[in-house]
Amino acid sequence: MPDKKIELYVPAITPFDAEGGVDSGRFVAHAKWLLDNGAHGLAPFGTTSEANSLTLAERKDGLEALLEAGIAPEQLIPGAGCCSVGETVELSVHATRLGCKGVLMLPPFYYKCVPEDGILDAFSQTIERVGPDLRVYLYHIPQMSGVPITLSLIGRLIEQFGDQIAGLKDSSGDWSNTAAVIGEFPQIDTYSASEALIPENASAGGAGCISASSNVNPRGIRDLIEALGAPAQSEKLSQVSDVRTIFEGLPLIPAIKAAIALQTGDPGFAQVRPPFTRISHDYSGKIEEAVRLSGARTQQ
Amino acid sequence: MPDKKIELYVPAITPFDAEGGVDSGRFVAHAKWLLDNGAHGLAPFGTTSEANSLTLAERKDGLEALLEAGIAPEQLIPGAGCCSVGETVELSVHATRLGCKGVLMLPPFYYKCVPEDGILDAFSQTIERVGPDLRVYLYHIPQMSGVPITLSLIGRLIEQFGDQIAGLKDSSGDWSNTAAVIGEFPQIDTYSASEALIPENASAGGAGCISASSNVNPRGIRDLIEALGAPAQSEKLSQVSDVRTIFEGLPLIPAIKAAIALQTGDPGFAQVRPPFTRISHDYSGKIEEAVRLSGARTQQ
Repeated sequence: MPDKKIELYVPAITPFDAEGGVDSGRFVAHAKWLLDNGAHGLAPFGTTSEANSLTLAERKDGLEALLEAGIAPEQLIPGAGCCSVGETVELSVHATRLGCKGVLMLPPFYYKCVPEDGILDAFSQTIERVGPDLRVYLYHIPQMSGVPITLSLIGRLIEQFGDQIAGLKDSSGDWSNTAAVIGEFPQIDTYSASEALIPENASAGGAGCISASSNVNPRGIRDLIEALGAPAQSEKLSQVSDVRTIFEGLPLIPAIKAAIALQTGDPGFAQVRPPFTRISHDYSGKIEEAVRLSGARTQQ
Repeated sequence: MPDKKIELYVPAITPFDAEGGVDSGRFVAHAKWLLDNGAHGLAPFGTTSEANSLTLAERKDGLEALLEAGIAPEQLIPGAGCCSVGETVELSVHATRLGCKGVLMLPPFYYKCVPEDGILDAFSQTIERVGPDLRVYLYHIPQMSGVPITLSLIGRLIEQFGDQIAGLKDSSGDWSNTAAVIGEFPQIDTYSASEALIPENASAGGAGCISASSNVNPRGIRDLIEALGAPAQSEKLSQVSDVRTIFEGLPLIPAIKAAIALQTGDPGFAQVRPPFTRISHDYSGKIEEAVRLSGARTQQ
């Protein structure tokens, strides 16, 4: 087993209030519960967080709320990748000045079939404008962004920026791609998006996972990490895989939020922003099963 | 021939200065040249305008620069669709208060495979927050947005908001879809994204075109519109199709900007923002041919 530390960063959901605004009270409460229940850190304002349905001001205010609540910036990798370099710079400067561990950075994602040189240029301009304190975690999620982070691009960025390229989250679901990233670039921290891949990720030399369902099941995932290589690994893996499988069959983000609502007894957590809709009651049984498998919230 | 007026709205490119900022001098000069050379109006801050590589402030400043230069707001349909409803509202309020004819509105485009009810909800929340003066031109460009504007969605929006749904731009390249939109919703102004489809669009009852290559060839396209149903139609259609065909074989936005640079004798127009890169010199011959076919700029 390689000696890289295996960690869980949770892409914390963003709760909304009755008027549709960001609910910073629920946001902070959920974030603290995650950190008290297995998460090594948080990757807020990613895909699961509905970050692309927030304004820049809401994202900055939300990050500040976490810090004001006493969460250490070293435990935070907020999402900062926007369509425009100017907006990515704005969020990255904000997070970097606040001392965050780094930022999770999508490529510019509106324009498709763009040349690798252009994507490289977007990342390069961003890093140069933000400065040497920035640490970038590249965000590969081609099924949403439509713009892959290729092995070639990663290599060119590391060549140009060294340890400012701190890691990568592979949300492609393609383990062979994750394995190739870890194999070619062992110096960066590569996270899987699935907790079910933690054993493979750890064995290959990866850094752990950043998984949507860890919003509901952080303790189960942390228990798996602690059990890696031990007799309990198989049982812990079954638990996280069972929870994950339930969510994979549902509209993911609305389902995660509905499960948190059930787990906390606070229906306000279930609210989503468009283009999502609240999950249908048809799925209540599956949500209940995911919560039953994940356990109740005892430290809320 | 139906009696709807056939018009050309140009998705004006956004020029950049040597430092990469928006060059409002070149922007205004190009906009005025377009309106003096065949364009009925402008649809700035669309896909061709690299709008998704601009900040909200740059988009608002650019629109104000056009108005300050004396361009009538009734001739402007700026793009306003962002990933988040909050940002779409901000741009739409700005354009509406300035008296623009309407806004060209992408659906929220980060999240894919979202339910139609969620996309409807995004448009509905936007229109309700901006108010009754807003006129929406729906922007169907699934190859970039990943989120189609379906016939069903158009129907539900018209049912809910009546004449606030003013039109649609169909950039899908699928004429059968455009024909279906025009056929089912003759009360809205439906624009093709290709000038080569203007005869079909006009015959079916559409409103004209909003085409990238009209940045270079506005006079040719206007001449085609004026010749519709007349003996000269065939010759004019050949001219616009020949120009368009050249651009279809090139990286479109960099090629359009390179052609404007050649047409004006001002190389500054060729600059693009990432994720685009300047067009390769390998294509110089094709750019020259497109400019030769479109004609020089005599009224710059």
